[in-house]
Amino acid sequence: METVKVAVVGFGTIGSGAVKLLLQQPERIARATGKKVELAYVVDKDLTRSRGVDVPKGKLVDDLNLVLNDPEIHTVIELVGGIEPTRGIVLKLLENGKNVVTANKALLAHHGPELFAMARKKGRSIAFEAAVGGGIPIIAAIGQSLTANRIECIHGILNGTSNFILTQMEELGTDYSASVAEAQRLGYAEANPAMDVDGTDAAQKLAILSHLAFGATPDWRKIPRTGIDTVQTADIRCANELGYSIKLLAVAQLTDEGLELHVSPTLTRHHTPLAEVRGAYNAVRVVGDAVGSVFFHGLGAGQMPTASAVIADLIDTIVGRAAITFKTLALWDKDRSAPVPVRDPGKIADRFYLRLSVQDRPGVLAEIAGVFGRHNISIASVLQHEPAGLDDGFVPLVIMTHSASAGALDDALKTIDSLPCAHPGTVRMRVRD
Amino acid sequence: METVKVAVVGFGTIGSGAVKLLLQQPERIARATGKKVELAYVVDKDLTRSRGVDVPKGKLVDDLNLVLNDPEIHTVIELVGGIEPTRGIVLKLLENGKNVVTANKALLAHHGPELFAMARKKGRSIAFEAAVGGGIPIIAAIGQSLTANRIECIHGILNGTSNFILTQMEELGTDYSASVAEAQRLGYAEANPAMDVDGTDAAQKLAILSHLAFGATPDWRKIPRTGIDTVQTADIRCANELGYSIKLLAVAQLTDEGLELHVSPTLTRHHTPLAEVRGAYNAVRVVGDAVGSVFFHGLGAGQMPTASAVIADLIDTIVGRAAITFKTLALWDKDRSAPVPVRDPGKIADRFYLRLSVQDRPGVLAEIAGVFGRHNISIASVLQHEPAGLDDGFVPLVIMTHSASAGALDDALKTIDSLPCAHPGTVRMRVRD
Repeated sequence: METVKVAVVGFGTIGSGAVKLLLQQPERIARATGKKVELAYVVDKDLTRSRGVDVPKGKLVDDLNLVLNDPEIHTVIELVGGIEPTRGIVLKLLENGKNVVTANKALLAHHGPELFAMARKKGRSIAFEAAVGGGIPIIAAIGQSLTANRIECIHGILNGTSNFILTQMEELGTDYSASVAEAQRLGYAEANPAMDVDGTDAAQKLAILSHLAFGATPDWRKIPRTGIDTVQTADIRCANELGYSIKLLAVAQLTDEGLELHVSPTLTRHHTPLAEVRGAYNAVRVVGDAVGSVFFHGLGAGQMPTASAVIADLIDTIVGRAAITFKTLALWDKDRSAPVPVRDPGKIADRFYLRLSVQDRPGVLAEIAGVFGRHNISIASVLQHEPAGLDDGFVPLVIMTHSASAGALDDALKTIDSLPCAHPGTVRMRVRD
Repeated sequence: METVKVAVVGFGTIGSGAVKLLLQQPERIARATGKKVELAYVVDKDLTRSRGVDVPKGKLVDDLNLVLNDPEIHTVIELVGGIEPTRGIVLKLLENGKNVVTANKALLAHHGPELFAMARKKGRSIAFEAAVGGGIPIIAAIGQSLTANRIECIHGILNGTSNFILTQMEELGTDYSASVAEAQRLGYAEANPAMDVDGTDAAQKLAILSHLAFGATPDWRKIPRTGIDTVQTADIRCANELGYSIKLLAVAQLTDEGLELHVSPTLTRHHTPLAEVRGAYNAVRVVGDAVGSVFFHGLGAGQMPTASAVIADLIDTIVGRAAITFKTLALWDKDRSAPVPVRDPGKIADRFYLRLSVQDRPGVLAEIAGVFGRHNISIASVLQHEPAGLDDGFVPLVIMTHSASAGALDDALKTIDSLPCAHPGTVRMRVRD
C-alpha cells in the first residue's frame, strides 16, 4: 500500500483532535484513501504542553522548515488560526507545493483571493470544510451536492457560542451576562467572547458561504451585523409569547436587486427547524430552485467535530477529489467570477419585531399606529400587557409588522423616538417564518 | 470548451425533471463541470405523452441501442425504475462502457453486488445520490464527508409518503384511510401505496445506507419492518400527550453484538429534530464517533428535488469525483468487505410504548404491572383516562417501558394476552428520545 506523508501545523485544540484521528484511526483513514497516511510532523511553538495524545518522538517540532523542505509531504493541515502570521505560513506551504487543509474562516474571509491565487499558480488545492459549520458538511453540500441548483437563500445559525447563550436565556430565563458566564464555565465561550457574540464570526462564515453559493465577494466587514449582546430576556419572553425563538441568523438571500446579506438576532417561528436548534449547535438552511429547502444541523465547533471535517478534507485531498473541486469551483478567481451585487441594507424588506416603551395612557397606541401607517408600514400583531414591576408610567408595547423595508422602518422609528409618549431606543429585530 | 455527451433512459416524472435541468440550465452545468454537457438521447417507450419539456427533434427515441452503440456517450442517467427489465438495461449500459447515474433504490437493494461488479470490471462508476433521501445529499455525507468517523447509528425518516400521512393524522386528527386518500389526492401517494406505507421503500433505503455506513450487506427483505398502516389515531393522540410524535423510523445502530436494523412506527420526543419533520419531508440523523450527531432534512421525493440529486451525480461523474468515490468506497465488493453481523431483532433493546385494552376494574393495573415485573421489564410511565365513548367494560391503558429487549417484551405480552382482564392485540411501538 502506497504511503502518503502529511503534516499538521498548529497543535491546539483542533490540531490535537486531527492528530488523534491520524494516529489512533490509521485503518479508518487507509480504508477511505486506499493509502497509508503517515503523519510526518506536528509543528507548534509549544513542544511541552500535554494535549492528551502522544506524538512519536521527533515528530513534534517547532520548525516549519522541516515541513517546507520535505518534498514528500503531500498535504498540510493548517490549524494555527488567526490571520498573521498564518497568512504567511499558508503562502509558504503553497509555494513549496503542499496542498492545504484549513479550518480558518478568518483567514479565508480576509485573504481568500491571495491564497487561492497562489494555490492555482502552484497547481495545489485548498480545502476548508471545517471553516464553516464545524462538523456539518455544508461546504461539500453547496460546492458539490447542490450544484444543479440556483441557490436562492441561505439561513444559518453559524455561531455555536451565541446559540448556546440564547438557549440558556430562553430555557432558564437567565440574563445575558449570566448566560455568557455559564458558557465560559462550560468552555463554549472564550474569556473574551467578543468575536462570537458581536456577529464577527458569523459574518466571516456568511461571506465564505456567499462566495461559494452565489459567487459574491463581499467584504465581510461590510456585512451589516448585530450581535446577541443586544438581546434582552424581555425580548426572548415576548418572542416566545408570539410563538418565536430568537436566534442569531446569518442570512444571504438572492433577489432581483442583488444579494441581501446580514447577521442579526432574528425571531424564528417555533416548530421550524431553525427555531429548534438548541445549545452549541449550528444549522444551515439552503434553498435551491430545484431541491427546495435542505436543512443541515450539527456541532459547529469543538475538537472532534471540527477534526472530523478536517480529516474528511485531508482524505478528499489525498484521493484527488479536492483537486477537482478546487478547479471546478474556481473560488476567489477574479478571471472566472462575475461578482454579484450586494444590496443596500436599508432597502432590505422583512417583517420586524419592535419593542417600544410607551406612556401608559389612552390614545398612545393610536398615535404610534398612526406613525407606522403614514410610513406605509402595516402592523401584523400587537402585544401589550398590564404594567408590572416598577411603574414609571411607561409600559412595553410589542409590535410585529408585515414586510417593510428597513429604511422605511428607520424613518418611522426616528419619528416615534421624537414623540413625548415614547422612550427612544426601540428594540428592533427581523422576523423569519 | 470540451463537449460531453450524456443520455437519459426513462422519461417519467424524475426523468423529465433531469431533462429540464439539462436543457434549460446548460450554463449552470457548464460552470460546475467546465464542459459543455450535451443531451444526446432521451430513451422511453412512450414517444408522444407531453412531459412539460421540449426535447429537440430526433433526440427522444425508443431504441436503447442508439445509446449503447454511441461510443461518445460518457454517462447515462437511468430513471426507468423497478427491477426488471431495468437490471438488464443497466448491465448493458455498463458493458458498453457507460458510467451510470441512478435513483433506483429497489434495483440497488436487490442487485447492488452484480451491478457494482460489472462497473468495476468495465472501469466505470455508478452514482446513486438520488436513491436515498431525494434531494438530501446523504450519500455524499456518509460516503465522503463523514469518512473520518466510525458511524454509530443512523435514524432516518426515509419515506415521505408515510411521513405526510402521519403528519395529517397528527395535525388534523384524521384517521389512516382518510389521510391516505388526501395523500393520493395531492400526489404524495400512488394509487397503490403499499410499498410506501408497509415499510418496503424505507427498508430498501436503510439497506443501502447500512452498506455505505457500516459495510453491512443485509438482505433488505430480512430487515424487520412494520408499516404505518398499523398506526391508529388513538396512538398518535396518546403519544402526543406523553410528549412524542409517531414517525416511521428506519434505524441502523452499531452495537457490540452487531448491527441492529429495523423500520417501524416509533415515538420520537417532541422538540427533537426528527419529531419536527412534517409533511412529505425526509430526514436522516447520523451519529459518528468524532462528529457527534449530524442531521439532514429535505424533500425526499418529487420531480425537481430528485432531479437535483441526479444532476449532482452527473456533474460528479463528468468531473471525475464519482470515479474516485466509486473506487475508494468499494461498495458491494466482496473482496473488500468484512461483513458486519446483523443482530437478532428479538434481542434489540429499546424503550417501548404499549397500548393495552384492559378491564376497567380494581386490581387490573397491579396484575398487568406484575407480569412486566416478572419479565424484568421496568415501567417508566402509565397513562389511563376515564372511559369515554362506548363502554364495553374495557379501557385503554398506555404504558411506556424503560429499555427492554424486544424478546422479553414479546414474552410478557404473550402472557398478558392470555389474561381475562386484557384484550389480545396490544399495540406496541419503539420509543426514541
